[in-house]
Amino acid sequence: MASLKVPANVPLPEEDAEQLQKAFKGWGTNEGMIISILAHRNATQRSFIRAVYAANYDKDLLKELDKELSGDFERAVMLWTFTPPERDAYLAKESTKMFTKDNWVLVEIACTRSALELLSAKQTYQARYKTSLEEDVAYHTSGDIRKLLLPLVSTFRYDGNEVNMTLARSEAKILHKKIEEKAYADDDLIRILTTRSKAQIGATLNHFNNSFGTSITKFLKEDSGNEYVQLLKAVIKCFTYPEKYFEKVLRQAINKLGTDEWGLTRVVTTRAEVDMERIKEEYLRRNSVPLDRAIAKDTHGDYEDILLALLGHGHA
Amino acid sequence: MASLKVPANVPLPEEDAEQLQKAFKGWGTNEGMIISILAHRNATQRSFIRAVYAANYDKDLLKELDKELSGDFERAVMLWTFTPPERDAYLAKESTKMFTKDNWVLVEIACTRSALELLSAKQTYQARYKTSLEEDVAYHTSGDIRKLLLPLVSTFRYDGNEVNMTLARSEAKILHKKIEEKAYADDDLIRILTTRSKAQIGATLNHFNNSFGTSITKFLKEDSGNEYVQLLKAVIKCFTYPEKYFEKVLRQAINKLGTDEWGLTRVVTTRAEVDMERIKEEYLRRNSVPLDRAIAKDTHGDYEDILLALLGHGHA
Repeated sequence: MASLKVPANVPLPEEDAEQLQKAFKGWGTNEGMIISILAHRNATQRSFIRAVYAANYDKDLLKELDKELSGDFERAVMLWTFTPPERDAYLAKESTKMFTKDNWVLVEIACTRSALELLSAKQTYQARYKTSLEEDVAYHTSGDIRKLLLPLVSTFRYDGNEVNMTLARSEAKILHKKIEEKAYADDDLIRILTTRSKAQIGATLNHFNNSFGTSITKFLKEDSGNEYVQLLKAVIKCFTYPEKYFEKVLRQAINKLGTDEWGLTRVVTTRAEVDMERIKEEYLRRNSVPLDRAIAKDTHGDYEDILLALLGHGHA
Repeated sequence: MASLKVPANVPLPEEDAEQLQKAFKGWGTNEGMIISILAHRNATQRSFIRAVYAANYDKDLLKELDKELSGDFERAVMLWTFTPPERDAYLAKESTKMFTKDNWVLVEIACTRSALELLSAKQTYQARYKTSLEEDVAYHTSGDIRKLLLPLVSTFRYDGNEVNMTLARSEAKILHKKIEEKAYADDDLIRILTTRSKAQIGATLNHFNNSFGTSITKFLKEDSGNEYVQLLKAVIKCFTYPEKYFEKVLRQAINKLGTDEWGLTRVVTTRAEVDMERIKEEYLRRNSVPLDRAIAKDTHGDYEDILLALLGHGHA
């Protein structure tokens, strides 16, 4: 469930655009106004506001925000104001660049979005950066990591719920054999995880658990030292328990000395309209502190305000 | 979230009582009518119907149901028609009797209900059976199992959300030490699990996980052979992941040769008004088959119909 709060009576996009334009004007920027509008509109409403802003003021709202804001607050506002495919394309692009390389973000985007959402992010990626996500991932990775990540971002997975139990049984056996041999980058193992539907992978992993008495991630735990195995675990976590995957990203971002604002902003902006309520629940359960309180302790100012607004605080 | 579906316009209790009275009359019983009424009314509405039935027809609705119905269907209708405290008292009583002894059910009732719900079940128990739950548990158990179960059903736990992190840290250390020594029935270990608030136990177990790199249940897994350790694991599971605990009870009930109807009926009737939607979600995730389909495959007739109605099927 989403944490985003949209008011019962949403102002017309024209009114929102006008208020935003006023917020930029004059001496200083009215950050509170920006938050009170953008952090309480859904993706469709935000894109209407951008369209009306462009038509009425002949300016790109995103460029205005870029000009007026700065730091972590700017990054949060920008990421949030994007449409989901633009945001994913942007995050994926960062993740394939030399200094912002992040294989985990690629796994996250490839495995927690639906097939159509991933496709749509890849189309936006091409339109915007004039390259494909596939070629950038292939170029910037190597070895086993490329062997896993490339098909992961390439496949247009079947999204249906049907499950073939015979197949699940036989592929669970393959996975078990390969993992016992510590052949974590085996062709078949990668084929199963990168091409089967999420429902089918779920069935295979359930069979694994039923037949071998432990979940596959527990088998992998012993070897969790190297990046490849950790990515493999992240893939499985994203498929089976996305809310726990995101809880962990948030926990690590918040507990890190100095806070990892990129991770924090990314999870809050990408999940506020999707499943943030569930992630909050997991966060409380795993940390015995509500997520909003943990964020309020670690952040401040406008940046804190927008994160809390996206978590469901404040008037809507 | 509850799976129970109540119609937008609920008939008056007088009308429901009249329909039920008609369903009992004449040649044969109208089971469909009983389901269509009782399985779509919440606890308050059901008790109004019982009160009106007693007033208008001078008969106890529960006794009428007992007379008219039989088998698994009867048990499901009876358990469902009870108020939650009556139902818990009834289940607890069964669990302390010689031939229906079930320590797991006692753990389930003691650990997944709020302090007030447990108290209320114990008051009903006393009013109904003229003994206390505590004396019956004490009398019918012994050794380590009594050492764990008796305080578990006795304590009126604090239900607040506040958490003492210093205490969590020190008690996590105690738990770790005792578990490493395999002193699973240690006084301190039992004291912590049977007297601390659920929020505080959650914090302690989170600290355990953070400090020792694995959850406490994984430590216990190796020794899962004996009943005491299994009960200890059930206690922890009920506190931390009740929806997974109930998923497992359902999975085992359904997968059992011949189906364990008692377990199935118990979980469906006790959780339909509480968190059955979450349990259904976990069931699908863990079994790759929706719970309603698994139940439909394993049961039939009126029994199947009432279970599915309580899971949210049918007109409401």
